[in-house]
Amino acid sequence: MLSKVVKEKLVAIVSKENFDDAKTERLVYSYDSTPNLQSMPDAVVSPRNTKEVSEIVKVCNQYKVPIVPRGSGTNLCGGTCPTEGGVVILFKYMNKILDLDEENLTITVQPGVILVDVANAASAKGLFYPPDPGSMKIATIGGTINENAGGLRGLKYGVTRDYVIGLEVVMPNGDIIKTGGKLAKDVAGYDLTRLMVGSEGTLGIITEAILKLIPMPETKKTMLALYQDLEAAAKTVSKIIANKIIPITLEFLDQPTIRVVEDYSKIGLPTDAKAVLLIEQDGSPEVVNRDIEKIIEVCKQEGAVSVQVASTEEEALALAAARRTALSALARLKPTTVLEDATVPRSELAKMVRAINEIAEKYRLQICTFGHAGDGNLHPTCPTDSRNHEEMERVEMAFAEIFEKAVELGGTITGEHGVGVMKAPYLELKLGKEGIAVMKSIKQALDPNNIMNPGKVFAKEDRKRVVITNQGSAFRDDDKNRVVVTQ
Amino acid sequence: MLSKVVKEKLVAIVSKENFDDAKTERLVYSYDSTPNLQSMPDAVVSPRNTKEVSEIVKVCNQYKVPIVPRGSGTNLCGGTCPTEGGVVILFKYMNKILDLDEENLTITVQPGVILVDVANAASAKGLFYPPDPGSMKIATIGGTINENAGGLRGLKYGVTRDYVIGLEVVMPNGDIIKTGGKLAKDVAGYDLTRLMVGSEGTLGIITEAILKLIPMPETKKTMLALYQDLEAAAKTVSKIIANKIIPITLEFLDQPTIRVVEDYSKIGLPTDAKAVLLIEQDGSPEVVNRDIEKIIEVCKQEGAVSVQVASTEEEALALAAARRTALSALARLKPTTVLEDATVPRSELAKMVRAINEIAEKYRLQICTFGHAGDGNLHPTCPTDSRNHEEMERVEMAFAEIFEKAVELGGTITGEHGVGVMKAPYLELKLGKEGIAVMKSIKQALDPNNIMNPGKVFAKEDRKRVVITNQGSAFRDDDKNRVVVTQ
Repeated sequence: MLSKVVKEKLVAIVSKENFDDAKTERLVYSYDSTPNLQSMPDAVVSPRNTKEVSEIVKVCNQYKVPIVPRGSGTNLCGGTCPTEGGVVILFKYMNKILDLDEENLTITVQPGVILVDVANAASAKGLFYPPDPGSMKIATIGGTINENAGGLRGLKYGVTRDYVIGLEVVMPNGDIIKTGGKLAKDVAGYDLTRLMVGSEGTLGIITEAILKLIPMPETKKTMLALYQDLEAAAKTVSKIIANKIIPITLEFLDQPTIRVVEDYSKIGLPTDAKAVLLIEQDGSPEVVNRDIEKIIEVCKQEGAVSVQVASTEEEALALAAARRTALSALARLKPTTVLEDATVPRSELAKMVRAINEIAEKYRLQICTFGHAGDGNLHPTCPTDSRNHEEMERVEMAFAEIFEKAVELGGTITGEHGVGVMKAPYLELKLGKEGIAVMKSIKQALDPNNIMNPGKVFAKEDRKRVVITNQGSAFRDDDKNRVVVTQ
Repeated sequence: MLSKVVKEKLVAIVSKENFDDAKTERLVYSYDSTPNLQSMPDAVVSPRNTKEVSEIVKVCNQYKVPIVPRGSGTNLCGGTCPTEGGVVILFKYMNKILDLDEENLTITVQPGVILVDVANAASAKGLFYPPDPGSMKIATIGGTINENAGGLRGLKYGVTRDYVIGLEVVMPNGDIIKTGGKLAKDVAGYDLTRLMVGSEGTLGIITEAILKLIPMPETKKTMLALYQDLEAAAKTVSKIIANKIIPITLEFLDQPTIRVVEDYSKIGLPTDAKAVLLIEQDGSPEVVNRDIEKIIEVCKQEGAVSVQVASTEEEALALAAARRTALSALARLKPTTVLEDATVPRSELAKMVRAINEIAEKYRLQICTFGHAGDGNLHPTCPTDSRNHEEMERVEMAFAEIFEKAVELGGTITGEHGVGVMKAPYLELKLGKEGIAVMKSIKQALDPNNIMNPGKVFAKEDRKRVVITNQGSAFRDDDKNRVVVTQ
């Protein structure tokens, strides 16, 4: 609970109607898209501008009140779950596109703008903002910056980090800093812009961002290749790249995923195929045609049993939907869906998929795997039920092994979802004690009172995925160390 | 001077033949490519592997001895001048290409590899490492990472930062950390990779790097457009971009530079032109041809008096040489050449060039301006003589005004050269006190004893470019706070 003095100070900053500590409102912001994780904040505030954000932060810093900046809460790592209570900051007023600059190819936005609105504003001017996480229709740009969101176009166009060229940030002491600018080149000091991107709200609050745009590619083609052999699909991925072709999209679905997707969306996917590759290329018509022809050739050489190129835009959308709907389709199977994003070097794709299947078998779980094959960024997904504690324990153990395998293959525990609460216990696998120590000193230096999204990124205990208590749906509202299961 | 115990410990680590504290050797490493700056190190050591680097760092950390990691010393900001003495670390043994991975499109290198050798190794496999600073034939890859080097291809392909995807770093306490990997996506923790890139050796020592490669573009065309009007050239730059064309190179030379270059290289440049744009495009032949045609049209619309497209590779090289030789040509004019890299948003290019000319006139200096127009990254260059103290003072004042103007136009004090000693006093202009405070806390947290390249990036005094003493060529070898002029 906030003390009376903190509440009064916050109300004085944002006004009464933008401060809410009613239980119903707090409940709304007690969880995000991460399964199995919920915790009540003490209050929800909606600042109207950067100055108000700065004043809120100063008060919270003085009284050591946790702050959780929150967009639409679409993240999958528990990044915006207020696990230590405190104040959730919403950006419903700070949701404007401030400037679209066609000469400098930039768009300047407030954190609350929805990602698809950024993409559409760019596209209306013939420009392109490539990052496209699955949540792009609802996620805010602030959230995607905090999590360094990826998506299906990462292989060719990179991720959010590659498009953020300037930031306004409120630091944990309330200072407002500006990094970068509308600049193609800037080496004035440490790269604070990229330090903030992906820092999951633990180092400061992003209140404005300058994003880089690129010219919209002239055209795009979409194709699907079917395989009776998983290895052949994985080999195709490497061979396309080795042929010096970088497709915009190079996605993979395994058989369990294909079946679930077909059952859900009835788009005519062959459910007897062992693996499907969804491949897209964009660019000038000549290049796209040549690349697609070459890709078809590679697919066939590597043993694709069928290759289908969309001849109309509708057909292309239908093919792409096979991949885009995978998560929704899988989420229908069971009450709880655990979706991860272990990532390996592209060359290790086949080994990783094989390992996931073996691990699923070992722990008697259904794990469907799909994902960004071109990036080596897989989404092993386990439909399960959080009420089945025995099965949940097996899920935890299976994913622990998946992360270990990914790191063993030169990969990482998270390619695009972030660490948050869920993967904090595994971060050391990737970074080692020394790497964590570096991160901790930076966190401690910038946020000595640990008010900025505490409990995220850094593990409290080693090697335990998430604390699941047995208290059902009741919140321990008064307990500062609460991580409870919804049931 | 190193104490006896430190010397003994360092010799024990690297062996006697890789430790040198003779005056002649120290003299060699007392300066870099920055004019007007020299200072003696206490010793020069050449570790043979990462473990030795770590041990050296541990000794230096214990005894608070400054460390300056050094490549070929081609930087222009005083980044590798040992201004506070201490130990210069050379990477002459750590100069191997460890791995070129065609499946993952990566090259793994030690810091001492020469940049052009990285580019050539990639190119031999049909791959491309785009960063191309002017020093690429002699600079080491470690140096380019520490300075986040740019070059002529930044507009289309970005800078060094965009190609570093994994690092091994020895931290100031001797810990060895590994960041990133052969991964297209990785969001496991803070972006320590990019924090290190461009940190100028002040946060750690890079001992290995994984660099991203891309497929080599099929073809390239080169053209030159001449203008009788500076504004028209600047407008052309913006208009090409606004036409959704991103050339690989979009370089600018003003009349004073054209004249100097022509005098030097006799390539038939029209010395009566007020401005020249050197434009290159690469990609598939169809796209390159179409883009070049469109660019010619834009140049003519904007009033180019002549447009020349190279018809052979030799001709292309000759045209490109006009830009590549600019610095060498200018350096012949006077004993001292002060070259800066104030950078502005592309749209502000004309204003910035005009401001530079006015400032040159105001301070009665010759300032030639050339640079990466597409990036807004200009190189105002002043041929001068460091022995003429009265003129040097005017040079300092002129550049101070140039930096202020750049920041006023939304730009930065350095686009690609780095801060080092030379621009440290101006960093606050760009980042504000609050931004500097953030950087300082990070530095203090990671390097509490301030052993890593001390005296760089952070200013000792405000707004004073470099301390120039009047003692001629004598070194104050015993003085820890020495910054002396060579005369």
